[in-house]
Amino acid sequence: MKKHLATAAALPFLFSAAVPALAQYDAAKVEKLRDAALKDDVAWDITEGLTTEIGPRPAGSPAEARARDWAVSKLKKLGFSNVRVETFDMPVWERGEERAEIVAPFPQKLVLTALGNSGATPMDGITAEVIGFDSLADLEAASDADVRGKIVFVSHGMVPTQDGSGYGYFGGARRQGPTVASRKGAAAIVIRSIGTDHHRNPHTGVQRFADGVAPIPAAALAIPDAEQLQRILKRGKPVTMKLTLTPRDIGTHQSGNVIAEVPGRDPKLGVVLAACHLDSWDLGTGAIDDATGCGIVTAAAKRVMDGGDKPLRTIRVAWFGAEEVGLFGGIDYLRKHPKDHAVIAESDFGADRIWRFDSKLNATAQPIVRDLGALLAPLGITQGFTDRASGSDIGPLSASGVPTIELQQDGTRYFDLHHTPDDTLDKVDPEQLRQNVAAWTTMLAVTANAKVEFGPVAADQQ
Amino acid sequence: MKKHLATAAALPFLFSAAVPALAQYDAAKVEKLRDAALKDDVAWDITEGLTTEIGPRPAGSPAEARARDWAVSKLKKLGFSNVRVETFDMPVWERGEERAEIVAPFPQKLVLTALGNSGATPMDGITAEVIGFDSLADLEAASDADVRGKIVFVSHGMVPTQDGSGYGYFGGARRQGPTVASRKGAAAIVIRSIGTDHHRNPHTGVQRFADGVAPIPAAALAIPDAEQLQRILKRGKPVTMKLTLTPRDIGTHQSGNVIAEVPGRDPKLGVVLAACHLDSWDLGTGAIDDATGCGIVTAAAKRVMDGGDKPLRTIRVAWFGAEEVGLFGGIDYLRKHPKDHAVIAESDFGADRIWRFDSKLNATAQPIVRDLGALLAPLGITQGFTDRASGSDIGPLSASGVPTIELQQDGTRYFDLHHTPDDTLDKVDPEQLRQNVAAWTTMLAVTANAKVEFGPVAADQQ
Repeated sequence: MKKHLATAAALPFLFSAAVPALAQYDAAKVEKLRDAALKDDVAWDITEGLTTEIGPRPAGSPAEARARDWAVSKLKKLGFSNVRVETFDMPVWERGEERAEIVAPFPQKLVLTALGNSGATPMDGITAEVIGFDSLADLEAASDADVRGKIVFVSHGMVPTQDGSGYGYFGGARRQGPTVASRKGAAAIVIRSIGTDHHRNPHTGVQRFADGVAPIPAAALAIPDAEQLQRILKRGKPVTMKLTLTPRDIGTHQSGNVIAEVPGRDPKLGVVLAACHLDSWDLGTGAIDDATGCGIVTAAAKRVMDGGDKPLRTIRVAWFGAEEVGLFGGIDYLRKHPKDHAVIAESDFGADRIWRFDSKLNATAQPIVRDLGALLAPLGITQGFTDRASGSDIGPLSASGVPTIELQQDGTRYFDLHHTPDDTLDKVDPEQLRQNVAAWTTMLAVTANAKVEFGPVAADQQ
Repeated sequence: MKKHLATAAALPFLFSAAVPALAQYDAAKVEKLRDAALKDDVAWDITEGLTTEIGPRPAGSPAEARARDWAVSKLKKLGFSNVRVETFDMPVWERGEERAEIVAPFPQKLVLTALGNSGATPMDGITAEVIGFDSLADLEAASDADVRGKIVFVSHGMVPTQDGSGYGYFGGARRQGPTVASRKGAAAIVIRSIGTDHHRNPHTGVQRFADGVAPIPAAALAIPDAEQLQRILKRGKPVTMKLTLTPRDIGTHQSGNVIAEVPGRDPKLGVVLAACHLDSWDLGTGAIDDATGCGIVTAAAKRVMDGGDKPLRTIRVAWFGAEEVGLFGGIDYLRKHPKDHAVIAESDFGADRIWRFDSKLNATAQPIVRDLGALLAPLGITQGFTDRASGSDIGPLSASGVPTIELQQDGTRYFDLHHTPDDTLDKVDPEQLRQNVAAWTTMLAVTANAKVEFGPVAADQQ
């Protein structure tokens, strides 16, 4: 399929006055880059290398530091310019022992894992009665007297969705549950993992006790274990659990963002940011979260770099540090680079095929959106929102009004693996990974060369 | 479909002289029992109850003793006769801590679990170089000098098969690998789990060091971890692993077989044995291995018991103890009941649908085989071997020449779960479980009432 440049003639009257020569990219060349990317091996090479040679990369850890060295070396070898690390300090929480068992009425072990920033039990654990709730709302509605001194259990079950929207809704049990339980005087909280699988691999994830709220032990049961506990509670006898969690805060450590560039011809036009995160949770090797993201954006940027024509705008690849535990990398980056960008995008939702293309750009850039839609359609990508797009690390930048593009990966099986020990290389489908690279290559080739203002767009309302 | 009784006229000349009135069962009644069993809830109830109220049931443990009490109570409540426990003593091996990590060149933790009868490391572990082999044969071919003092790694990968035959072939790495490695002076052995999944749930299982061979630490890596170790080894640098396994032998403890009967009209005709095993590995809750087996055979026997007609032969349900660690229950049972049986069968391969019906019966019983084939076909079951059938606990009895029937479950996904933490209730498909009950009900109704000699059959050659 040949798709030619958008022209004023193709535009609705509303935009036409603002659009002179809209683009400098050559659609035929973009298509060629796109189709060649379907044979990409660079994204796999980065994913395989990072997960194998570093493995888990917890924020602020020596492993994350090794990963930064690995990234700098890899990005230089790939031919990028201005490869550098921007460091920052952050508080580090470290997992300890984690064990749980039903003491009565049916003694047996349960599999769980501490949530980020969980409080600790004594070394030999706590033993308390379990009180079960079907949802966070039920916990919120409970009286303090019912909850006090007990181990709260929230069993709300997440359902898979293609766009990942289940995470926002069901994730409340993890994000707010510990604070709600602590305020009511609970001894601890265990939640059903925020996930969609049925394996005995619990899903960790960050939570943060609200200011002034005392940290309590907070953990996620593997889903089979949560269902087991539900069945046991349904028998109607008092259920006693012994819980041992010994995480600790180990003070301030260094993390950092690794940055590399494909220099553009006109620095004044602002940077196209292609972001991912380098850190991972400690349980798996961070394959889909987010080694693949770094593989995808880097492979795509390299394809544009190697495509023959120096792009109009600089493409900046950012492998952020310390995303998982509170977006520390993204926040540090925003502080240092609030004004650099023409348009930003991030890959942090696995590597299953991209199915939808969302954007939040100025009205003058809509022809580019339509062009991009047409160039992405052969990859099986549909047009989505034109008034909303975001990301995790780039979330604060995006919310501040920086034009944003979002290439949505299929999230149907993402939460089977997310934040579990099971997030390992074998879960990555090389063919779907290549489709991601092709979509990103297309997007970067167009946005780095389009002669258009992507912004301003309105900042999100607070 | 109406299937009438086999008659002499339907038989090949070879058998006709030996077949008077072949059967006393009423095929229409059997069909009615069979079809009613497709709505069975008893097998689920047993499976759910045992896995929830007892959970893991390691051989010789207090949990297995609680499970026997649970079984006796349940079998009495279901209306069985002669409910009893036949106890026996057995040596007990108990899992301890189990941890592994790559120390160099790429430090990271690996997930593994000790194999049954594994030796122990010191409490603070051992650290040694890893030597990798693609198969047990490659390990066997290695020189002692290459292996001595190292941690042996065997990476042979199992493939799924419907009939489970991959287990015999690929299982050698687990069964013989530790002995072979110890003989060559290895410090320890870790194998790729004998399984077909890609989750970070290692597959345990029994192995036994040959007489005179010193026990060494022996463990199975989860499959993603085994593939990770392979990738690391392929980098070509020396790989050092720290391994901590602290299992121990805790002496002789009691186990037992729980037995219950549906009394027949003519005790002289011998017993139809419907077997399963009550114990499980410690990592999961033993749902598919083998709570479902006990659910299936018990639900089927109950259906025949409640069908209105007292069967000709006694049906004996046996929930064996201590199967997983060396068939102790089956061996004790054989010692006490060598001559009781007309025909024997066992359910110990999960609860996915039965797809094939195998038998090893006397020539005079072949019309019954054909009748049974026709009665099972509407359940989607095909005719298999007529000269081979066995089971695990009943293996020694079967090998000694006792007529045997085998209703083969589909094993395609069995080894995704087998001996892992993931063997939990949620893996059981209630509809396929019911098909199992229907097949077993059919088989028990026919064999308990068929007026035929099932044996003698030849003993297996040693």
